[in-house]
Amino acid sequence: MRRKSFEGVPCGIARALDVVGDAWTLLIVREAMFGTRTFDGFRKTLAIPRNTLTARLRDLVDRGILRVRVDADDRRRRIYELDRAGRELWVVLLALQQWGNRWMFGETGPPSYMADRETRRSVAPLVPRDRSGAKLRLQDVTMIPGPAATPELKARFRRLAARGT
Amino acid sequence: MRRKSFEGVPCGIARALDVVGDAWTLLIVREAMFGTRTFDGFRKTLAIPRNTLTARLRDLVDRGILRVRVDADDRRRRIYELDRAGRELWVVLLALQQWGNRWMFGETGPPSYMADRETRRSVAPLVPRDRSGAKLRLQDVTMIPGPAATPELKARFRRLAARGT
Repeated sequence: MRRKSFEGVPCGIARALDVVGDAWTLLIVREAMFGTRTFDGFRKTLAIPRNTLTARLRDLVDRGILRVRVDADDRRRRIYELDRAGRELWVVLLALQQWGNRWMFGETGPPSYMADRETRRSVAPLVPRDRSGAKLRLQDVTMIPGPAATPELKARFRRLAARGT
Repeated sequence: MRRKSFEGVPCGIARALDVVGDAWTLLIVREAMFGTRTFDGFRKTLAIPRNTLTARLRDLVDRGILRVRVDADDRRRRIYELDRAGRELWVVLLALQQWGNRWMFGETGPPSYMADRETRRSVAPLVPRDRSGAKLRLQDVTMIPGPAATPELKARFRRLAARGT
């Protein structure tokens, strides 16, 4: 059962969640990032039900996150690889992992983390910055209408600005 | 209907998705970030079904993302505010928004974006960096077992390292 689609909602967050908001989807992308490339590979490492995996892989290919090709060595087998939009999702996964590792594991510490391949030191916490490189905190930031903002959305942002939040 | 829980899975990404992998959940956090504080406020801006909203708010309070108090001016009303773990989710939302804005809207451009409140310029794209501040690309990064890695997970990382991905 799929939840409501946010396809018509004018918000980059909602639209991103429409594509990758399903937990299995992001875990498949995580696996693809670290080298899993076949149906059986995903099925074993994720312990994901067959029909769920079939549906999610099809979806990810349709949306340009993964691309698929036939294995040259075994023509019955398909190879799944991250396409460009999929590769760029690694920043989303990093943000999720840093948050999960910080808040979900208490004193035992995290089971795994992303690290520099050469130095083996963990990736530094992601820091939002303005265009001149200065750090931004949540309270420094507001939401602004973009080129595709609907009149309704613009009105909402005006109300937001008026109450100063 | 809730999907399978990843509570036992030793992965910060999976555990984060367990808490915030539901699309409504992250949209409620987005609203809270930009000033919505009441049940009716969330219901109107998100057009979310009442019972879904009730369940998600309870869940977010249970998990320490939101905290709730009684409105001093109207004691029948509850005020929901982001707790510390909830505030830190803004980096996850920013990563999602930047990805969604980049890949989901084509030539029309995004409907909204996060920006510096004072300069009105958009937040710079998040850049993963190592501990000395150098930029990291996906290919520079690997997954490393943490203090709470299970033997099974350690074996998987050894296999990953062996094939050089």
